[in-house]
Amino acid sequence: MLDLSLYIILDEGYINNSLSAIVTNICKGGATVIQLREKTKKTKKFLEDALITREITNEFNVLFIVNDRIDIAIAVEADGVHLGNEDISLNYARKIYPDRIIGYSVSGVQQAIEAIKEGATYLGTGCLFPSTTKSKPLVPLSLIADIKKAVNIPVLGIGGITLERVPDVLSAGADGVCVASDVFNHPNLLERVQEFKSKIQSAKI
Amino acid sequence: MLDLSLYIILDEGYINNSLSAIVTNICKGGATVIQLREKTKKTKKFLEDALITREITNEFNVLFIVNDRIDIAIAVEADGVHLGNEDISLNYARKIYPDRIIGYSVSGVQQAIEAIKEGATYLGTGCLFPSTTKSKPLVPLSLIADIKKAVNIPVLGIGGITLERVPDVLSAGADGVCVASDVFNHPNLLERVQEFKSKIQSAKI
Repeated sequence: MLDLSLYIILDEGYINNSLSAIVTNICKGGATVIQLREKTKKTKKFLEDALITREITNEFNVLFIVNDRIDIAIAVEADGVHLGNEDISLNYARKIYPDRIIGYSVSGVQQAIEAIKEGATYLGTGCLFPSTTKSKPLVPLSLIADIKKAVNIPVLGIGGITLERVPDVLSAGADGVCVASDVFNHPNLLERVQEFKSKIQSAKI
Repeated sequence: MLDLSLYIILDEGYINNSLSAIVTNICKGGATVIQLREKTKKTKKFLEDALITREITNEFNVLFIVNDRIDIAIAVEADGVHLGNEDISLNYARKIYPDRIIGYSVSGVQQAIEAIKEGATYLGTGCLFPSTTKSKPLVPLSLIADIKKAVNIPVLGIGGITLERVPDVLSAGADGVCVASDVFNHPNLLERVQEFKSKIQSAKI
């Protein structure tokens, strides 16, 4: 079973320092997955950043997921891609990317069932809490349990998850938490990722 | 040998009408290649537009090239991709896209020689004339002949090519002309593509 328990979403907006240093701190802190999301950068730059991220995540044996761009995921031999509703549709994605992880964002049970049929490896919920990176309609925490009842693949909580909210998200049935702003807005990234790691480990005992 | 003589670049900015109608007119007018370029649209929309373009270009036996996005090119079974200097680098592109056309934009002879080594199928020049879609430094028309002396793959003229400039570009040694604004700014797209077709045919006699 994939360990997706601590899934850090590294949006380009948070790359305000050396990318290597950021990725290294995330890995050292105990993340099990890093997703790289670059929606506005040129493809060439995204590829370069993905190569750096792949190299470091390989060293630390951390899963590496590329947001949206299957071509970049293939080029750098990432472990998978994460797709949203505005990205390439799942059925086409699975056709051209048959063997690796495809994560998909869903905001309802029916959508989750469809996503499984079309080949999703794991699911992320729509935004659970108000987030600084995305302003989207929120979904209730109870959605996690509803989806878990309907499907048997990992379901991750996404959207505004702070350290304090981790126990609630895991109690709600999530197999992991996707975290972005909380760790990147903290003055010490490594330390904050470690705090998430501890919180997840205590919650799971 | 690929017929790249009349290569229409359909930028998203020119899709001001039904895409099907636009693509059909380009094909009917006698284009040998259509490139679809969508730099700002969501991936999902680009995929949908690429599927429409693929279907119509197949009907007319016109080559279909996707700008930048190899994943979309694979998904819709396009004939190839066109890459610029800010897109995925050629060596990675060829690795993940081994069997189809890869066009590459170059602005010098040395770059052209490198591009061939890295697997380019055809080359486009940098901007030859001032263009309304891209504001880039211009390259001289003589570059075409210089590149043709150094490499033996098709070389296309790109950038601000109007109907009147076709003979000069072809006389300079180009295997084809890439056209965008001239045909899309014309009140009758089909008619204008036909005019380009005739001009190319007379120039080649």
